[in-house]
Amino acid sequence: MTTPKATPEDKFTFGLWTIGWTARDPFGDATRDAVDVVESVHKLAEMGAYGVTFHDDDVIPFGSEAAARDAVIARFKGALEETGLKVPMVTTNLFTHPVFKEGGLTANDREVRRYAMRKVMRNMDLAAEMGAETYVLWGGREGAEVDMAKDLQAALDRYAESIDTLAQYSEDKGYGLKFALEPKPNEPRGDIFLPTIGHAIAFISKLEHAHLVGINPETGHEQMANLNFTHGIAEAIWLGKLFHIDLNGQHGPKFDQDLVFGHGDLLQAFSTVDLLENGGLNGGPSYTGPRHFDYKPLRTEDMDGVWRSAQANITTYLLLKERAAAFRADPEVQEAMAAARVAELGTPTLGEGGYQELLDDRSAFEDFDADAVAKRGAGVVRLDQLMIEHLLGAR
Amino acid sequence: MTTPKATPEDKFTFGLWTIGWTARDPFGDATRDAVDVVESVHKLAEMGAYGVTFHDDDVIPFGSEAAARDAVIARFKGALEETGLKVPMVTTNLFTHPVFKEGGLTANDREVRRYAMRKVMRNMDLAAEMGAETYVLWGGREGAEVDMAKDLQAALDRYAESIDTLAQYSEDKGYGLKFALEPKPNEPRGDIFLPTIGHAIAFISKLEHAHLVGINPETGHEQMANLNFTHGIAEAIWLGKLFHIDLNGQHGPKFDQDLVFGHGDLLQAFSTVDLLENGGLNGGPSYTGPRHFDYKPLRTEDMDGVWRSAQANITTYLLLKERAAAFRADPEVQEAMAAARVAELGTPTLGEGGYQELLDDRSAFEDFDADAVAKRGAGVVRLDQLMIEHLLGAR
Amino acid sequence: MTTPKATPEDKFTFGLWTIGWTARDPFGDATRDAVDVVESVHKLAEMGAYGVTFHDDDVIPFGSEAAARDAVIARFKGALEETGLKVPMVTTNLFTHPVFKEGGLTANDREVRRYAMRKVMRNMDLAAEMGAETYVLWGGREGAEVDMAKDLQAALDRYAESIDTLAQYSEDKGYGLKFALEPKPNEPRGDIFLPTIGHAIAFISKLEHAHLVGINPETGHEQMANLNFTHGIAEAIWLGKLFHIDLNGQHGPKFDQDLVFGHGDLLQAFSTVDLLENGGLNGGPSYTGPRHFDYKPLRTEDMDGVWRSAQANITTYLLLKERAAAFRADPEVQEAMAAARVAELGTPTLGEGGYQELLDDRSAFEDFDADAVAKRGAGVVRLDQLMIEHLLGAR
Amino acid sequence: MTTPKATPEDKFTFGLWTIGWTARDPFGDATRDAVDVVESVHKLAEMGAYGVTFHDDDVIPFGSEAAARDAVIARFKGALEETGLKVPMVTTNLFTHPVFKEGGLTANDREVRRYAMRKVMRNMDLAAEMGAETYVLWGGREGAEVDMAKDLQAALDRYAESIDTLAQYSEDKGYGLKFALEPKPNEPRGDIFLPTIGHAIAFISKLEHAHLVGINPETGHEQMANLNFTHGIAEAIWLGKLFHIDLNGQHGPKFDQDLVFGHGDLLQAFSTVDLLENGGLNGGPSYTGPRHFDYKPLRTEDMDGVWRSAQANITTYLLLKERAAAFRADPEVQEAMAAARVAELGTPTLGEGGYQELLDDRSAFEDFDADAVAKRGAGVVRLDQLMIEHLLGAR
Repeated sequence: MTTPKATPEDKFTFGLWTIGWTARDPFGDATRDAVDVVESVHKLAEMGAYGVTFHDDDVIPFGSEAAARDAVIARFKGALEETGLKVPMVTTNLFTHPVFKEGGLTANDREVRRYAMRKVMRNMDLAAEMGAETYVLWGGREGAEVDMAKDLQAALDRYAESIDTLAQYSEDKGYGLKFALEPKPNEPRGDIFLPTIGHAIAFISKLEHAHLVGINPETGHEQMANLNFTHGIAEAIWLGKLFHIDLNGQHGPKFDQDLVFGHGDLLQAFSTVDLLENGGLNGGPSYTGPRHFDYKPLRTEDMDGVWRSAQANITTYLLLKERAAAFRADPEVQEAMAAARVAELGTPTLGEGGYQELLDDRSAFEDFDADAVAKRGAGVVRLDQLMIEHLLGAR
Repeated sequence: MTTPKATPEDKFTFGLWTIGWTARDPFGDATRDAVDVVESVHKLAEMGAYGVTFHDDDVIPFGSEAAARDAVIARFKGALEETGLKVPMVTTNLFTHPVFKEGGLTANDREVRRYAMRKVMRNMDLAAEMGAETYVLWGGREGAEVDMAKDLQAALDRYAESIDTLAQYSEDKGYGLKFALEPKPNEPRGDIFLPTIGHAIAFISKLEHAHLVGINPETGHEQMANLNFTHGIAEAIWLGKLFHIDLNGQHGPKFDQDLVFGHGDLLQAFSTVDLLENGGLNGGPSYTGPRHFDYKPLRTEDMDGVWRSAQANITTYLLLKERAAAFRADPEVQEAMAAARVAELGTPTLGEGGYQELLDDRSAFEDFDADAVAKRGAGVVRLDQLMIEHLLGAR
Repeated sequence: MTTPKATPEDKFTFGLWTIGWTARDPFGDATRDAVDVVESVHKLAEMGAYGVTFHDDDVIPFGSEAAARDAVIARFKGALEETGLKVPMVTTNLFTHPVFKEGGLTANDREVRRYAMRKVMRNMDLAAEMGAETYVLWGGREGAEVDMAKDLQAALDRYAESIDTLAQYSEDKGYGLKFALEPKPNEPRGDIFLPTIGHAIAFISKLEHAHLVGINPETGHEQMANLNFTHGIAEAIWLGKLFHIDLNGQHGPKFDQDLVFGHGDLLQAFSTVDLLENGGLNGGPSYTGPRHFDYKPLRTEDMDGVWRSAQANITTYLLLKERAAAFRADPEVQEAMAAARVAELGTPTLGEGGYQELLDDRSAFEDFDADAVAKRGAGVVRLDQLMIEHLLGAR
Repeated sequence: MTTPKATPEDKFTFGLWTIGWTARDPFGDATRDAVDVVESVHKLAEMGAYGVTFHDDDVIPFGSEAAARDAVIARFKGALEETGLKVPMVTTNLFTHPVFKEGGLTANDREVRRYAMRKVMRNMDLAAEMGAETYVLWGGREGAEVDMAKDLQAALDRYAESIDTLAQYSEDKGYGLKFALEPKPNEPRGDIFLPTIGHAIAFISKLEHAHLVGINPETGHEQMANLNFTHGIAEAIWLGKLFHIDLNGQHGPKFDQDLVFGHGDLLQAFSTVDLLENGGLNGGPSYTGPRHFDYKPLRTEDMDGVWRSAQANITTYLLLKERAAAFRADPEVQEAMAAARVAELGTPTLGEGGYQELLDDRSAFEDFDADAVAKRGAGVVRLDQLMIEHLLGAR
């Protein structure tokens, strides 16, 4: 086999916390040692990555003194310069320290909320310094286990206050950051606020700075609610809100698995890559930002397995990209698309003249033979099987 | 026991298709005969209902001639007049006839989409005539089983075109209808567009007539994705989009059960009723529209069971309402709420002067003792158990 | 592409109810006409199928008179003779008629149970006449929506009484049938008895005729509980209870989709085919019975789509079989298997002499360096990616 | 309110790891300090508990020297003597240490399996010394994320070898232990072997020492697969395999929540308590062993919340027990049960004389009027609503 090779143009990025995960889980202690950030940067550069991303605490240990902090940052920057890797996205850890146990930006305790805000703002300064364009907020602790111990509306008020304040800060400072909220239905909280792509975008619609705020959906998070991730990001693109993306794998509604991209629902991974790379089937917009892998190397693995798993994300993505391109280019697929009237959905339902034209068209209703039209086959099965055969490399 | 009794002021409404369901399911034939609409209206009035709702085809058989149609409508109106029942909501059946097999408003086949539009418009005329305020659209056939046979972005374009056209029609005609989209994740389609409360509201944000369009969430639909229904409707209220509501029961991610309200996740039913009746814990808005039951009497039942099940919805709701009021009024609950700082979430995170005040406050960050604050108990367990004991009628 | 072609040796079988499904669903009327059984037999024979299977009511309309029944059977037999197709399995419809609404073999109503028994026995006579080896029982109506309206233990008593009686009947008559129970977690009942592979085999262990009874697991049914189907059938093979198998596709916990095999969780379909064809990774038993497809052609399709979907099951299976063979034969896979110590699991944990040897072995515990052994990488990621690349036809 | 009070006769037991959980989760550090075992014993005794249970490492830190171990055990025994608390069950931690990352009793690495066996055997010695009757095995690490890296059949061989060896050891030593396997579908492994009550009992049926081995089902574990826990334990009782039970709460298929008992699916908690306390609806066996709570106090809580949550398990159970007794005793319930023919399911389907009597009974089939019998209402809704009203304390 000739494995496809990544180049920075592919825009693959990795969270430092992914290959750096020491593999502690709710029932077990760490199986791996911490990885040096500089080593990670070099390894990922060798694989053809475009950049890395981080939470503040991934790079700078929580509670570091200023001098130690500066030294760590300088060393990290050195590695970036040596390799040419970018930092297109930065985020904040508002979940590990026990102070956030009841929430960060939506904690009942106002002191906690204020501390959380400051922690984000300090890291936004660093993000700007590193040249980041996108600032992600995953509110993993914003939620509840018990509905009657949290004012749900007030929580949304505080959430909105926070995001708008952070956006204002970025604008005032000239950072030019775009903000991307990351939805997740649950874990670690029983129910997390903004549980899906939809709930997050709906929330954004009420923000003062709505135009600066979009989402950072994660494959597995949407699939934890058994929702179709490709459908979700299609809606986000349609709404102009797909600001960033987290790619990984998940086997349906269970704990957050963070598997390698494609190693969960492979069919859906195929349609995801097709949408990101090729846009809508009739030429709608694609996605041009970083392809960011947010996964966890299996806890069973040593460092060899960690680096293999990083590579596995890239290779799987590139193979799916090849398969998707071949699917689109296949004349038989194009014929089947035509038979299934896929392009016809691009034609407005109304003609010229608004609905009056429709009301005047007796063929549309009075003379419409519903039973006869119902006999038309939709031609979906044929496309389905063509997709599978392309995916399996059998065409 | 003294069962609480409903009055029209409670605003309980029922879909005619609920008690009228003949109990055909995917693996079995009907177990009950059709129910006469007039009988249903009278029976529900006796129970203290406020009104009834319907799909066009619930009242007027699909394909009826004009004269037959008029006769049926006149008879139905007679029953409403006799009983005083209202018709606050009407909706369209765009799912039963095979012509909608590949979609209604988003079918690839433009002729189907045009027919679907006309079917809705005709029924909007009737809705206006009946005095309905809300027009519900459940797009049960708008979706896909196969991602590569549908242009997802074009589907949303057509969906938006449809809703905006219908809203325009209502405005032009002076109907003054509000539109409520009903989300559902799947069934009958493998993946339905606008699968959750969030996805539907996000979609609405792009509509031209967004202010006329909200949602009609259903308890079981949100729970089919294992999402918290109370959280969902709290967000909808926060966004001003809870235009109508469908109450029923469901046991998690499986087929759409449409159980009696409360007979699925009883804890969540309790917090739902508390929110609808009492609003946010700190005094946020409640919901004042109809309490609409959209359920299916168990297929095992004869008509005696059907009417008992209708009553069961009402009784369960009223009992939960009593329990919620007692919970709110209990001084021990109030003390526990204070201990859990529930009201503190109502205080803005920032003080006067925007974020500069926060940046200047060393106690918020530089001098903040995260470890010490982390020791504070959040007091959630106490409220949780008080809730359970009130629910069980043990306080 | 050269599509792999099926032959009867591949042992592909289809339920007549699959391609014969008229596509009525809980929210919609039939979109297709009934298919003539004889036509189905011929079409499937052309595709290289080995046989067909049926419920009594698939072939003989419910309530047919004796003469009509005989004529139908004779015609069906004629088609089998013409094509050489076998009938390796037969089953009974105890779910469509409303009389079974509260259960068949476990209905509270004893008259219903007796009728259900007789319906099965009559069809067993036909099964024997057709040369069937396996008799499947899917208890779709054996279950409950409400726990307090059914004596769960008595239900299992009656279920056991039924199965043992039927087995005795087969033995007495010299039919030599094997019985295969088909588990399903829910739908059409809220909770079905014997919900998973495990619950069914556990139940069987108490039967008098346990040796005559095994299971007929269905891919999608196990996945509706988000359980791993390959793990389930591996346990069934290990227990000698995989008497028959239903292959199809499903997208996790939602309504029963009955998609084409492989068109749901493709990764799991791959490991399923590998297990069925190649047995355990260290040479454990495979499965030699019919590969039975129990799926529903999408409701969107006309008859062209129906026949394409039947072919899609076969083609997808055969492609996965090719990929699995290539995976097993790949020297790099073999090396990775060795590195991951896959074969070492075949070695008993104890040596000779029972546990005393283990107690005496200080290296096993007292001198065991757990921290050092914990550092060994398990080599799973490498196998995972090799599997994906073989599946994608990239190796 | 007069809260019901527990006494040791209620047989409530707690795992020391429950109130001792320091609240570290996959995304966060511990929020509480370790609790002294002696304090826990005293606190639980004050609440009226019957006993405590433990994993080896809960009481004796992993890797302790012999002398330290003896001192810890002596101190623990002292607390038990002072309070009169029993230790009816003991278990082994085969999941926290990284050496078990790829499995314990089913690890590919034979050295790990041997170490795991020894760790269990050593703790069985202690269990016997403490007077435990039941030994629980939860195989949280026995499983896989990748199907092609594990020989599934060999894994079951090794699992069986282990359990049979341990049972033999107990018999040889005269410990008289009963073994209880604890099923769980996933987490921490992607798929755990023996994922449900059913799969575990099916597995046991092949063991040499099957009579010594039963199950320890956990409410939330079965509900993580959206299975009905009450149905599961009813089947286990029917099979004589309910050797122990873990009670807690869960909100459907998501991460393992380990909520307080009743604080998840409250309706199912009610039927669970009814079955455990009152047995089958027609007088079938109940459960007489310890009511063991295996839950985690919310991570948001301090020690006050921890002890409140322990009490909440007891109080909720006792309230449900009261409600269940009242439900059973209510004449209206009894009448509704009769109408629903609940007791009729206790009557064998066959009369005297085996199936020949049934074949000879023309009223059972030839003269059976299926359509007429289908009209009978099953009376389920009435019982359903009576159940809810009793549960809500409204009767």
